[in-house]
Amino acid sequence: MSESMHGLRRTHHCGELSKQHVGQEVVLMGWVQRRRDHGGLIFVDLRDRSGLVQIVFSPDVDEAAFKKAEAVRNEYVLAIVGKVQERPEGTANPNMVTGEIEVYAHTLRVLNRAKTPPFYIEDHIDVDENLRLRYRYLDLRRPEMQHSLIMRHRAAKSVRDFLDNHGFLEIETPMLTKSTPEGARDYLVPSRVNPGKFYALPQSPQIFKQLLMLAGMEKYFQIVRCFRDEDLRADRQPEFTQIDLEMSFVDADDVMSLMEQMIAKVCKDTIGLEIKVPFPRLSYQEAMDRYGSDKPDTRFDMELKDITPIAAKCGFKVFNSAAAGGGQVKGINAKGCAAFSRKEIDDLTAFVAVYKAKGLAYMMINEDGSVKSPIAKFFNEDEIAAIKDKLEAQPGDLLLFVADKPAVVAAALGALRLHLAQRLNLIPEDRWNFLWVIDFPLLEYDAEEGRYFAMHHPFTSPVEEDIPLLQTDPGKVRARAYDMVLNGVEVGGGSIRIHRRDVQELMFKALGLGPEEAKEKFGFMLEAFEYGAPPHGGIAFGFDRLVMLLTGKDSIRDVIAFPKTASATCLMTQAPDVVDPAQLVELHIRSTAVVKNNSDK
Amino acid sequence: MSESMHGLRRTHHCGELSKQHVGQEVVLMGWVQRRRDHGGLIFVDLRDRSGLVQIVFSPDVDEAAFKKAEAVRNEYVLAIVGKVQERPEGTANPNMVTGEIEVYAHTLRVLNRAKTPPFYIEDHIDVDENLRLRYRYLDLRRPEMQHSLIMRHRAAKSVRDFLDNHGFLEIETPMLTKSTPEGARDYLVPSRVNPGKFYALPQSPQIFKQLLMLAGMEKYFQIVRCFRDEDLRADRQPEFTQIDLEMSFVDADDVMSLMEQMIAKVCKDTIGLEIKVPFPRLSYQEAMDRYGSDKPDTRFDMELKDITPIAAKCGFKVFNSAAAGGGQVKGINAKGCAAFSRKEIDDLTAFVAVYKAKGLAYMMINEDGSVKSPIAKFFNEDEIAAIKDKLEAQPGDLLLFVADKPAVVAAALGALRLHLAQRLNLIPEDRWNFLWVIDFPLLEYDAEEGRYFAMHHPFTSPVEEDIPLLQTDPGKVRARAYDMVLNGVEVGGGSIRIHRRDVQELMFKALGLGPEEAKEKFGFMLEAFEYGAPPHGGIAFGFDRLVMLLTGKDSIRDVIAFPKTASATCLMTQAPDVVDPAQLVELHIRSTAVVKNNSDK
Repeated sequence: MSESMHGLRRTHHCGELSKQHVGQEVVLMGWVQRRRDHGGLIFVDLRDRSGLVQIVFSPDVDEAAFKKAEAVRNEYVLAIVGKVQERPEGTANPNMVTGEIEVYAHTLRVLNRAKTPPFYIEDHIDVDENLRLRYRYLDLRRPEMQHSLIMRHRAAKSVRDFLDNHGFLEIETPMLTKSTPEGARDYLVPSRVNPGKFYALPQSPQIFKQLLMLAGMEKYFQIVRCFRDEDLRADRQPEFTQIDLEMSFVDADDVMSLMEQMIAKVCKDTIGLEIKVPFPRLSYQEAMDRYGSDKPDTRFDMELKDITPIAAKCGFKVFNSAAAGGGQVKGINAKGCAAFSRKEIDDLTAFVAVYKAKGLAYMMINEDGSVKSPIAKFFNEDEIAAIKDKLEAQPGDLLLFVADKPAVVAAALGALRLHLAQRLNLIPEDRWNFLWVIDFPLLEYDAEEGRYFAMHHPFTSPVEEDIPLLQTDPGKVRARAYDMVLNGVEVGGGSIRIHRRDVQELMFKALGLGPEEAKEKFGFMLEAFEYGAPPHGGIAFGFDRLVMLLTGKDSIRDVIAFPKTASATCLMTQAPDVVDPAQLVELHIRSTAVVKNNSDK
Repeated sequence: MSESMHGLRRTHHCGELSKQHVGQEVVLMGWVQRRRDHGGLIFVDLRDRSGLVQIVFSPDVDEAAFKKAEAVRNEYVLAIVGKVQERPEGTANPNMVTGEIEVYAHTLRVLNRAKTPPFYIEDHIDVDENLRLRYRYLDLRRPEMQHSLIMRHRAAKSVRDFLDNHGFLEIETPMLTKSTPEGARDYLVPSRVNPGKFYALPQSPQIFKQLLMLAGMEKYFQIVRCFRDEDLRADRQPEFTQIDLEMSFVDADDVMSLMEQMIAKVCKDTIGLEIKVPFPRLSYQEAMDRYGSDKPDTRFDMELKDITPIAAKCGFKVFNSAAAGGGQVKGINAKGCAAFSRKEIDDLTAFVAVYKAKGLAYMMINEDGSVKSPIAKFFNEDEIAAIKDKLEAQPGDLLLFVADKPAVVAAALGALRLHLAQRLNLIPEDRWNFLWVIDFPLLEYDAEEGRYFAMHHPFTSPVEEDIPLLQTDPGKVRARAYDMVLNGVEVGGGSIRIHRRDVQELMFKALGLGPEEAKEKFGFMLEAFEYGAPPHGGIAFGFDRLVMLLTGKDSIRDVIAFPKTASATCLMTQAPDVVDPAQLVELHIRSTAVVKNNSDK
């Protein structure tokens, strides 16, 4: 058999060589990071997945190899044979893991040449992301990208080891499945064999994993691709990966306790981080009250303080009418920001307006403890003192208030809290604040649609004693749901599921699905519940997001090998693309778009 | 939090209880396998994933539990609390793992009721597969199905452990990708954001894994879903799972050697099977010559014997004209079948006709060593002796011959060999004959299409010294490819890939792709080759098929949790299905099929 490596067999990786190899002959293969000529010698930094090592070509060692090395350029692929030597006194490079040694090469094979890459193959480059995505195979050569994918691999391995040890079975569920109502928009796949019919790519394996519990598999998991055809935001991709699992005969505590152990193991196995279990738990209500968010970032304070009782009695109409109308008045303390300019305050007011807050009241605490504020005149001294007390105000602080419906107050102040924390650099980077949010409402009312929607999904179990409320006061029903939050990001969410047909039917009814419609859309599921469904529950983690947080990246695109852009395209392969019209004919569809087509050429 | 298990927490699994638990109080949860009343007691076999255990309800132990147990039916979901006791003398059940003990229950909670299932939840049922697929969640409760999925999980875990230990990274590649020419039919996904454009679901991650090698990842693997929209045969599914891997700086020997170690580990970790490495290697030519197949089943002999030299000189025109025209005459020895009837021979002739053999000549060896055959008269004694010698004929044997083009001879006799082996029960069930087939031709000529096709795929590297032949005699070029075969089934196939742009262009040219077309379809790949592509190669295994063989199943449907039928439908969910016409509008497509639509109702 012919050998593309000219019969050479790699003996070591570049980055693993050290003083202990001095004197050994090694065969290395990798890419040229850079070449420089100095003192009649040629130096090449050779790179492979493990790191860099310096190769030296000397005419005294091998004339032919030296000659060949002269033609070598960045990103050429080389195989070299040489001897490891300690670097001469004073030339060791402390910035390089292998900096104490170098390899004197007596043989060089150029395995492939390379054009000059469109950007440097090194960390911290300032390059347009689109260029990086177009040449993703070059972008991924950069050590920080390799590190991300290595961490991703390790995280997945860690999860699998943990779950295997705990009796879970990884079971693959279909990708070509059925369109799910009550979800996001589906990606559809036309069927050739069944004209006019379509598969949907799964938004999650929710129904299948529940059916696996009905099938007696007891403990299921899967690290699985999911799909949502939504308009993309910074941390969304049309296809994403989920750690998905489900257990039978468990309650919420069982799931939460096991999952915090799993996540603790992942943190340790990837970045060596020790985290404490159990995680703190916050009720949904407490999270909304204190942080204005159901995924609170607890790495810093600046909690929301309720001054509604004070506001109710004050002379400021905006405050007291909000309080009177069932609304709230709450504030946060931006410590040390009393010197904010009018312009800065205006910007903050504009910021909360996005969250539908009609205004942003403020009080600046002067050095002498007095208050500077356009609304100060509406409050008596006791009220001012009570407010300052409530918000733990000190001289130099800026107090910011929103008065509105509770949902608006929470959204506006919750966002403002995060905004200010970032701006004021209040967030310690080395904290890993995991917590659970529990006791969610089962349903939320959508005023526009005029009906209830499932806060998690329609299979979430209500708390047993709240079941009667489903028919009388659905908004009051609590869910047996739990979200895992890390540093203000929801990393996982799950629930105990409904396992009784009658309860599932009540739930569909609460969602406005008539019996006919429920049967048509979920008939097989309702039928399945009649054949001995065990109590069960589970959870799903956004794997991309988890790896992003573990590796300290800002975007999930940096932890996905071949991500798509915000317009859901792959800049490298140009997917999606036009296809041969004959393919569409076979699939019984016609494009209604007017585009330049392959066949027009 | 409300507890659906009424506050009970499972302490043991049914199947793990034994004499060592006698005297312990246990909490068990599971399904009722069967209930019977005997001697004033109620016996329930309770089943969970681990197995069965006998529960006893006695009015003397707990009147209420006994009363409740009277209402229990098959497949009810129960939680019980009770004490493990040794069964009375003479009542142990040796057919049950837990047959020496039983659990006297003092508490019973009915967690869910069940209707009578449409078939028995037990092994070896004789039920229409469509019914099983429709109620897959019940079918999967059967121990043999659970065993299949457990083995599948273990096989995947074993592969991942092995590859992780060998420095491989599991890297996920896109599911929404680009339609691939030169492959099977693609499943397409219309893009909403990019009107008139389509993603394709991957037939394999071939291009992406090669780009990962260009990206310096060095060792990649993935257990990954792949899709082919082909007309389905017994062992095909529209979506299937592949163990996919790729390595840089390796030759074919490196890949084959590592892969046989991996498969040996999988055999051991799943079914405890020890297999010997290295595997035997057969060249493609030898496999075709001796077995008439590039995936030979070597568990039995009956090899194809070439009698062309004898046939060339004989008086039988069919034989000598085949030999003269560049064809072959080959035979197999159906030992002990000399008594086959005229009808049986006719059936065999019809069988080989499917493979385009124009006839099937035969010789029966009489007890006295003489030959009974319609064609015997065309051969002299020496020729008959030579043929008998070549086929190692003994009295009682039946010799069968095909004279035709080599491809027809191989196909016909290769299939006939397998057919007879099955019919004559020659295949030992306990043999695990792994082997490699190597030295494949790179291209095969398709006379109908009038051009060459890649025998593996267009990225397979030719043997170095054969590269010039690509332009002069493409059919002669050998590929650096290798297939792993188990008991006559191809379980994996791979190759060293082309890593030079010039060679890839020659390959495309040999396949009849003009430079423009090649650039349009594979431009990004050709461009990528210019930036320092390392030598690389890999392999892919059909995971479903591998698990099927390991578990001794006849169909991959039995090792897939939710498979589809031959018409690519899921009988449980009714996927594919009609969708809301508004969904199609958003996707810029229109259905050309005339079907009853949701909106017509």
